[in-house]
Order: sequence, then C-alpha cells, then structure tokens
Amino acid sequence: MAKSAEVEHPVKAFGWAAREASGRLSPFNFSRRETGDEDVRFKLLYCGICHSDLHSINNDWGFSLYPLVPGHEVVGEVTEVGSKVKKVKVGHKVGVGVMVDSCKTCENCINDLENYCPKLILTYGSINTDGKITYGGYSDHMIANERYIVKFPDNMPLDAAAPLLCAGITVYSPLKYFGLAEEGKHVGIVGLGGLGHVAVKFAKAFGAKVTVISTSPSKKTEALEHLGADFFLNSREPDQMQLAVGTMDGIIDTVSAVHPILPLIGLLKTHGKLVMVGAPDKPLELSVFPLITGRKTVAGSGIGGMKETQEMIDFAAKHKITADIEVVPMDYVNKALERLAKGDVRYRFVIDIGNTLAATKT
Amino acid sequence: MAKSAEVEHPVKAFGWAAREASGRLSPFNFSRRETGDEDVRFKLLYCGICHSDLHSINNDWGFSLYPLVPGHEVVGEVTEVGSKVKKVKVGHKVGVGVMVDSCKTCENCINDLENYCPKLILTYGSINTDGKITYGGYSDHMIANERYIVKFPDNMPLDAAAPLLCAGITVYSPLKYFGLAEEGKHVGIVGLGGLGHVAVKFAKAFGAKVTVISTSPSKKTEALEHLGADFFLNSREPDQMQLAVGTMDGIIDTVSAVHPILPLIGLLKTHGKLVMVGAPDKPLELSVFPLITGRKTVAGSGIGGMKETQEMIDFAAKHKITADIEVVPMDYVNKALERLAKGDVRYRFVIDIGNTLAATKT
Repeated sequence: MAKSAEVEHPVKAFGWAAREASGRLSPFNFSRRETGDEDVRFKLLYCGICHSDLHSINNDWGFSLYPLVPGHEVVGEVTEVGSKVKKVKVGHKVGVGVMVDSCKTCENCINDLENYCPKLILTYGSINTDGKITYGGYSDHMIANERYIVKFPDNMPLDAAAPLLCAGITVYSPLKYFGLAEEGKHVGIVGLGGLGHVAVKFAKAFGAKVTVISTSPSKKTEALEHLGADFFLNSREPDQMQLAVGTMDGIIDTVSAVHPILPLIGLLKTHGKLVMVGAPDKPLELSVFPLITGRKTVAGSGIGGMKETQEMIDFAAKHKITADIEVVPMDYVNKALERLAKGDVRYRFVIDIGNTLAATKT
Repeated sequence: MAKSAEVEHPVKAFGWAAREASGRLSPFNFSRRETGDEDVRFKLLYCGICHSDLHSINNDWGFSLYPLVPGHEVVGEVTEVGSKVKKVKVGHKVGVGVMVDSCKTCENCINDLENYCPKLILTYGSINTDGKITYGGYSDHMIANERYIVKFPDNMPLDAAAPLLCAGITVYSPLKYFGLAEEGKHVGIVGLGGLGHVAVKFAKAFGAKVTVISTSPSKKTEALEHLGADFFLNSREPDQMQLAVGTMDGIIDTVSAVHPILPLIGLLKTHGKLVMVGAPDKPLELSVFPLITGRKTVAGSGIGGMKETQEMIDFAAKHKITADIEVVPMDYVNKALERLAKGDVRYRFVIDIGNTLAATKT
C-alpha cells in the first residue's frame, strides 16, 4: 500500500492544499525528502499566487493531481545544503520557480533550456523522479537540486521579487529571445495583469518604446503614469488601433482568455513577432494572409531556463524591478483566490508564509 | 476620357485576358510603355500558370482588376534596353516574377526585400505608378525596370525554369530565412503541388532530410522515388503522424485550402517553425498551448526579394533544379485552367508563348 503524504518522506512538512477540484485550500500535513548531495533546503518566506495556481486548484486543465499544494513563485532562506552544493550557503536568500527538476541530458537541458525539457518536473502537481507528487510553495519549507535554485541579491525586497520567478521570467525570456530587448524597439504589451505589468517594466528597462494594449480604458492612467509605458491603445477602439498599424517590432500577449489576434498582427511591422505567453483553453482564429504579406510570426514562449532566470533576477535587482503586490496572510488564501478569479488585484497577491503560516497549523 | 488599353501606351502588345470574373480568357489587344532609361523589354518565350492566376481570373480574392492579363512566371529574350541598364543586354535570357516595381526607398526595399514593400506593384492586376493596370505574361512581350529583371544562366531549360520565378522563390526564401537550408535539418513539406514539389528539390539540394506530408497516399511513390524525398507521411493516418512527433526543425506548408495545423505543430521539435506559404481564404484554428511548451512558431512568407530571386535561379541552375511541367499551347489555356482547378497537372502548366501565341491573334 502506498504511504500517505505525511509519511512517504522522512522530513515533516506543513502547508495548505486542495484535496479535490473544489477550489478551496485547507491546512495539510505532508513530508519532504532528505537532503541529497546536490540539494538545497530552505524555509519559506513568501510565495506569490499565480493565475495558474487557480487553474490547477480548480483542475481547469484536467491534469491536476491531489492533494495539490500550489505555489511556484517561492522565496526563502537556506537552512541546509548537500555536500556537493556550490551555488549557495546556509542563510542565503533563494527562490524556486515553476520547475524543480528536468532530465539534465537532453539537447534543451544541455543548452540551459530546462523549461523545454520533455521530462520537466513542475514545482507542484508533477510526478517526481521518485514517483511521488511534487508539492509547491504554499508550505513551510522546500527542497530542490541546486540547479533549480535561484540566488537573490541582498538588495531585493523578497516579497515583491517572488512573482518574478514565474511572471517575470515568462515575459523576460521572449523579450530577449525574439530580439525585443533593445533600445529603440517598439514593443506592445497586451493585457495589464500579473504578467503584463512586469513586462512593461522589463521592456522599459531594456530601452524599448512600450505601448500597452488593453480592452480596459480605465488602465490608461495606470499604464502611462505609474508603470511608465509610452503609449496606451484601447483595443476596442478601431480608430486608435488603425493609427498604430505597422508600428511594432513585437508584441507580448499575456491574455489567457480567447481573443482576436488579427488586429494585433496588424500592429506589427514587417518581420514583427506576436508572442503568446498566456494560453487560452480554446483555439484562436489565425488569418494566414497577413502573416505572408509581412513575413510575420505568431510564436509561443514558456517561462525560461535556470541560467536565464538567474540573469533575469540579477537584471531586475540592478534596475530595481519588482512586481506590484498585495501581501496577504496564509489564512486569507481562499479569499485571495476568489478575488484573483475576478481580476481584483493590483497586480499580484503574495502570501507572507514566514510570518503567518505557522499560526494556521492544526 | 480614359484611353483604352489598346492605345493608352505607345507600344502595341497582344495577349490573352479575362474581361470579367467568368473564368475564361480570350485574345486581347493592349499596349505597353516606351522603354525608359532603366527599362528592359523582352519578348516572351514561356509563362507558367500559377494557382494564383486562377484565383485572380475568378476574382476569388475580390480585388481583381479587368481586363486581366495573368502570368507572373515569365521568361523571354531581351529585345531592347534603356540607356542606363547594366544588368543585361539584347539577346540575354531573362525573367520576371510576381512584381515589376516597388518604392525603392523604404526599409524593406533598401534591404533587398522589395517583396514586402507596402507600395509593391504586382506583375499583373496592380495599378502601376502611371495609374494604369499592369498586364502579365500571357502576352507577346513585357517591360520592367531592370531591378525587377532576373537573368537566366545559359544552361537552364527556360520552360521548366519559368515556374521557379514564383513557386521556386516562394519556397526557397523561407527555407533560407527560417534556418532550414542546412545539412542535417529535418524539413517537412506539406502538399505536393506546384510549390511542394519544388520545395522538396530545394530542401534536398540544401542537404536537409525531407519528409513529404500529404493527404494523398497515392503521392508516396512519386515523393520518394521521383522527387527524392526521404520519408512520406499520410497526414490522415494518426499512427504515422504520432511516430514523427517532435522530429522536424521546420515545415513549409504549401496548402491553400483550410486545414488543421495542430498536427503539424506537433511534428516540430522545440523551436520548430511552421511556415505558411499558401493562403487559405478563411482563418485556421491555432492552439496556443503547443506553441508555448516548445517555443514554436507559426509564420508566413511571401515570394522573395529580387536579390534573393537571382540567387535562387543561380542556385537552381547549379543544382539542376527545375519544375516538373506540362507545356501547352496558348489556345489550350482555358482547358489548362479547368484542369488546374481540379489538381489535374503534374506539377505546373507552362504556356509555350513564343511558338503558339502569334497564331491566336485575331
């Protein structure tokens, strides 16, 4: 008989889990593995609430494994390292993002693109190499091979930096890969949520001219005055959109609802790239003719490799880029998920695990 | 009052034209401009029948201008050159493809990408800079600025080379631009028609491993034994398709009917590129998730610039690449168009203008 989550590993752990697709989390006793030679164990300080946590809790994608401890924007302080660990020491501030392991031998792993490894192990809800479910960062501590650990510079506010581990790298990587992280490029950012608002900050830091494209005219002031975007386009106003036709080198589209992309393709210059980082659950309509007449591209991009994630954190520290967050206690998590489902957060909830989780222990 | 086609220019010309969207062509007297300083005039020898001729004649795209003299796979022999022409002399064999002019000053024109110039003038059915309709290669002679003239090496059979000016460059350019023209790359070619059969030849000449993907199992022998493809996939056989998942660096999709692209995206490796060169008249379904998990791309590509078109012809001459053709007389054109509409040609009709047009003059 399979052992229960509480005793399947030797080290006790505590967090909050969904037991089935009810959308509700509650306190959960489980366990984690012993510290291997290359492992880093750390106590949790903060964990961001990503929109994909919500989808996973509700099993919207149909492949959730329960009990499900969400959380893949995780920061904390190292408490123990294996004998071969070189990257960090006890006391260092570290983080874990969307993945905790990969095969390390495929072409993608060799090229520092572990995020595209076919054997990628996700931080939560994956079956690990030991056959057990992985549990995420809504918990008291975590453990991972040092390759999947990111080191945080001393000057970063860890609460506001936590969301960079998913939202940040998700937009940083395509800006770099698709040649948009350059001075003078004109970059469109579609959607001003958890991903979009960080995308504006990175694109500006790279020296790009940034246009926020949104269906919500109410976000104009926020985009221009608070986030520093150069222009704002209301995508429901054809006249505004027409004025911007053929002006953008690339667009990062963060919207995960089904939406028309033909007007976005129209905004691109010849050779322009529309990069999708949000994943609508139904197919979008793709008109081919406008791609052909401008050698344009629609592409996808998913998080980033570990080397690039470290580079992103270092770049963010240097340019003082963090997410705009609302810090909440652990026992507020169900309310926070409800508000997130309605888009009622500016722009990311972060759970203060270090100060509020222990009190919820039953 | 606007002058008639027969007298609007000083030089008499004769060809075959559609007068309205009837699908029928008939003999047509018209005229062409005098030879300017940079112009090359040539007498027609052969003209390929491209699938887009059929669409234009029938006004399938809704922007045809009549009278419409089709033909943009045009080869002939120079009869007169302007005082400033350097590229060719009287007696040289030359060709004209899809365009006869562009602005020459925009970023694309400066970068030898006249094909993406917003002011591109198409070889037929466009309004030229003089305000008159352009007339294509189903005619006794043509004239164009030397920039839009391609020179043919002496060793090329001109009839079988004519289709390279559209079909050839349409597949050559994306093979090069998207990094598929390299030894060891695995390239898929979807559709084995006018474009597809030439794509197989170019991809093989570049040293790629080539898989033909088709809904017609009857094309397997042809693909493997005649055209030299390495593999054949029947896209209606899920088992065959499954075996090839994740194996291709890129796919050139030549199909202009609406068709599913999700299975094609599945055939791509991480970073793989699906390049559309056929333009379905309705949007396709695009599933975003498979793009994100492999940083994959769906792109479009349209013909090529003049420098690259010349490079393509020189490459084809060196590697003895031509189209597989059926040469027909001018008065067979309506029958040829009927057969083309049914896919009854292997793989391109070419009209023997030089030997058969004059006899149709009324």
